[in-house]
Amino acid sequence: MNELYHWFDLLGVAVFAISGTLIAHNKSMDGFGVIVLASVTAIGGGTIRDLILDVPVFWVSDTSYIITILVAVALTILWLNHRQSFPNYYLQLADAFGLSFFAIMGARKAIMLEVPDTTVVIMAVMTGCFGGVIRDVLAREIPMLLKGELYAITCIAGATLYTQLIHLNVVDELAMIAGGITILLLRLAALRWKIGIPVFRYSENNNRQ
Amino acid sequence: MNELYHWFDLLGVAVFAISGTLIAHNKSMDGFGVIVLASVTAIGGGTIRDLILDVPVFWVSDTSYIITILVAVALTILWLNHRQSFPNYYLQLADAFGLSFFAIMGARKAIMLEVPDTTVVIMAVMTGCFGGVIRDVLAREIPMLLKGELYAITCIAGATLYTQLIHLNVVDELAMIAGGITILLLRLAALRWKIGIPVFRYSENNNRQ
Amino acid sequence: MNELYHWFDLLGVAVFAISGTLIAHNKSMDGFGVIVLASVTAIGGGTIRDLILDVPVFWVSDTSYIITILVAVALTILWLNHRQSFPNYYLQLADAFGLSFFAIMGARKAIMLEVPDTTVVIMAVMTGCFGGVIRDVLAREIPMLLKGELYAITCIAGATLYTQLIHLNVVDELAMIAGGITILLLRLAALRWKIGIPVFRYSENNNRQ
Repeated sequence: MNELYHWFDLLGVAVFAISGTLIAHNKSMDGFGVIVLASVTAIGGGTIRDLILDVPVFWVSDTSYIITILVAVALTILWLNHRQSFPNYYLQLADAFGLSFFAIMGARKAIMLEVPDTTVVIMAVMTGCFGGVIRDVLAREIPMLLKGELYAITCIAGATLYTQLIHLNVVDELAMIAGGITILLLRLAALRWKIGIPVFRYSENNNRQ
Repeated sequence: MNELYHWFDLLGVAVFAISGTLIAHNKSMDGFGVIVLASVTAIGGGTIRDLILDVPVFWVSDTSYIITILVAVALTILWLNHRQSFPNYYLQLADAFGLSFFAIMGARKAIMLEVPDTTVVIMAVMTGCFGGVIRDVLAREIPMLLKGELYAITCIAGATLYTQLIHLNVVDELAMIAGGITILLLRLAALRWKIGIPVFRYSENNNRQ
Repeated sequence: MNELYHWFDLLGVAVFAISGTLIAHNKSMDGFGVIVLASVTAIGGGTIRDLILDVPVFWVSDTSYIITILVAVALTILWLNHRQSFPNYYLQLADAFGLSFFAIMGARKAIMLEVPDTTVVIMAVMTGCFGGVIRDVLAREIPMLLKGELYAITCIAGATLYTQLIHLNVVDELAMIAGGITILLLRLAALRWKIGIPVFRYSENNNRQ
């Protein structure tokens, strides 16, 4: 069973590595920096989670994550070199899948340490979002997370659902699937219909700085 | 007594959460990203401190910090939605208070672990300044910390005073108040009179890159 | 012998502190923020390494690192104030030396913890490159690491050589020198002849975003 989780984790790493490679291509980067950007995107969020939860960082003694990243990056580069352009949509799609996998895996890791529910949800957000935040900061983009569209909140919804299902003694696998699909659908809906939750009432002639 | 420190800590978290929300509004952000930016500002510095000192991260098993952030952000949003603009001065004021609380709480946490005095002072700077640095990096602003005005050095002054008073066996509360007020007054003075410590002698026709 | 390593470590800290000060000058920064930028450059990479390897952060109970930074920054400021400009070349040279020292010291620290070889190499990259990445992010530059020229890959080459030599039971000192010189020469060659490893085949009329 843990075997299965490991594969899901690797899948999350792969899609985020792809998303890092796509953004590197978008920003006309080149060379080995591309792999660094992909790696930071893929394992950055989980690394921060493990540091904060004070558990061994997941990739330090397990080389499968690094190999996954290298394979994912290599395939993406091959693909990009054959089709010189790609719609921005694919980047956001890869990001949505990574978000969903990572958030639930992060929540699961936290729930096993018996931290409060709010911390479980925060860990889901961190695992899911912070790799992408580091990616965007390094690539000097406005972090997707901080834009108006639903992003972190999809993780909060999915992780809260997951946490509640676990408390209701639902089987772990089922709870994970329910939580993960919630995140994915919410994020895809947000992308499709530009759904956001406006919190500020910006006036037209707002004195923005 | 520890109860009292906890309240001070929460107060620091609240003012930094407000400062994060204000900058999010300033940058025309929206949605849940505002709460993420506020949270990172409020608990980022202390999180880095706890990671480096290798003690449990303060908010992981204590939900009161997260609740404080949510309340502070909600109130700030309400306030901003009623008064569409606010002077930049308030942002800097909130920042100065957060700086002062956090720096002293950081110094206190470090001094209890019996690290060298220089490390105590560095921890004060990290706790006080690094949440704001992350905030500014994410919002793509030049970090206040790196501008010419007195910023980190106010923490150094206050934390050094605090450390020396503790070594002189002054009561903890008194030492904290003395250190905290030093930071606050220095920072407010720096804002009021644009005080900086120029270290470079920039010529007029400097070949800056 | 450990004495000698400590001195090398301090030398790495000094050159990175210089590189941080130079970039602060380049960006027309001033005040104490210069010291913060220099410090983050000098100890940022090693701090992240120690956090991830879950060992005590190297500078927390050893004040010699902080003193080294302060001296290096002070001397650099003096020098800059006498010669108002400096060629960008010196910044890159200081960076190359820091890269080489830090990468090997990072690999050595990791190899002693008996992590997999890939992790040893990653730790070399992190120790060598991440201080500079933080420096560039704070200074709002495109991280050198992400530009096309050989950068991270020099650390990978040097650290791989070092790791293999250690496995072949070569004396530690010799392995370190071989690895370190490899990094330095590769990086200098990359700077001199603009060597990069193009991974993307960018077309002329690429629809870059």
